[in-house]
Amino acid sequence: MARRLFAKKPFPVWNVRRFLEPGPVALLSSAHRGQRNIMTLGWHMILEMEPSLVGCYIWDENHSHALVRRSRECVINLPTADLARAVIGIGNCHGTDVDKFAAFGLTPAKAAKVCAPLIAECYANFECRLVDSSLIRRYRLFVFEVVRAHVATAPRYPATMHYRGGGVFMIAGRNVSYRKLFKPGNL
Amino acid sequence: MARRLFAKKPFPVWNVRRFLEPGPVALLSSAHRGQRNIMTLGWHMILEMEPSLVGCYIWDENHSHALVRRSRECVINLPTADLARAVIGIGNCHGTDVDKFAAFGLTPAKAAKVCAPLIAECYANFECRLVDSSLIRRYRLFVFEVVRAHVATAPRYPATMHYRGGGVFMIAGRNVSYRKLFKPGNL
Repeated sequence: MARRLFAKKPFPVWNVRRFLEPGPVALLSSAHRGQRNIMTLGWHMILEMEPSLVGCYIWDENHSHALVRRSRECVINLPTADLARAVIGIGNCHGTDVDKFAAFGLTPAKAAKVCAPLIAECYANFECRLVDSSLIRRYRLFVFEVVRAHVATAPRYPATMHYRGGGVFMIAGRNVSYRKLFKPGNL
Repeated sequence: MARRLFAKKPFPVWNVRRFLEPGPVALLSSAHRGQRNIMTLGWHMILEMEPSLVGCYIWDENHSHALVRRSRECVINLPTADLARAVIGIGNCHGTDVDKFAAFGLTPAKAAKVCAPLIAECYANFECRLVDSSLIRRYRLFVFEVVRAHVATAPRYPATMHYRGGGVFMIAGRNVSYRKLFKPGNL
């Protein structure tokens, strides 16, 4: 099926919290020695803005676990609700059995700073390097530094998917500015 | 101002991901030796379901940092959009200067397993014990185990607030079930 490919521009890496802090489901793409894969990423958090650190839970039974651990790179891609079927399908199958780009009609695009492919159909792509592997064993927690970010020029706020468990997703709703209530230093 | 107090029931702690994984802003309440405090918590993630582990970033300049570190407890409370002014106000002021419960008209309620107070006006309350303090120094990351959970009996899905930075919040939108598309083992 034909899908929209977003026009994108570079985005300051320190500010990727704008897209990850609201808690969307992401797609994590990786590559190593001729293999590539995509997994759904539901558990992640911002750990620091400068450097731009993101913690991601990657289960050790995910094929991506080995690819990311070995290549020490990945891309965190931000899908919107129109990609729901691909997002769920990617979670349903295992990367050793299938090329998920081909299986779900997603376009791998060349990244600027890592070898892992961007997913062209996603609203944003954050190129990441693994900077701390010491928490993988205990928590399956990978600490990445976002080294390059690409974000769609429009719309301003993406209709991201937020997983509630049990097969239910919350789709990002209305956006309200409370800017005037904030202390200027807290913005 | 009078606010709705939700009727609540116990909720299985392994399943708090249902409320935290979508990425809402939370309010973290704590108490230690006669002091109590509330802070806004924007950076958190599920780390495990059983035991029910949650990672939370608590900046060392937050008054709550010391209270939680010393008491080794807290409550993660889930505010809905009607509490927006309190959520922002709590982020604007410092707990050494003001009792935030009194200042923002919030009701402290007794928890079952921790000394930190629940915030009665919130949709859900997750009582937590600090189970790993080894990442605080490096990442200000507190690893908590949720030991008791209280969740409103209605509505089914709360209108949580999701911070986009710059004073803008996304309010939780519609909920869509894709249950039929999931492999049964993945639900």
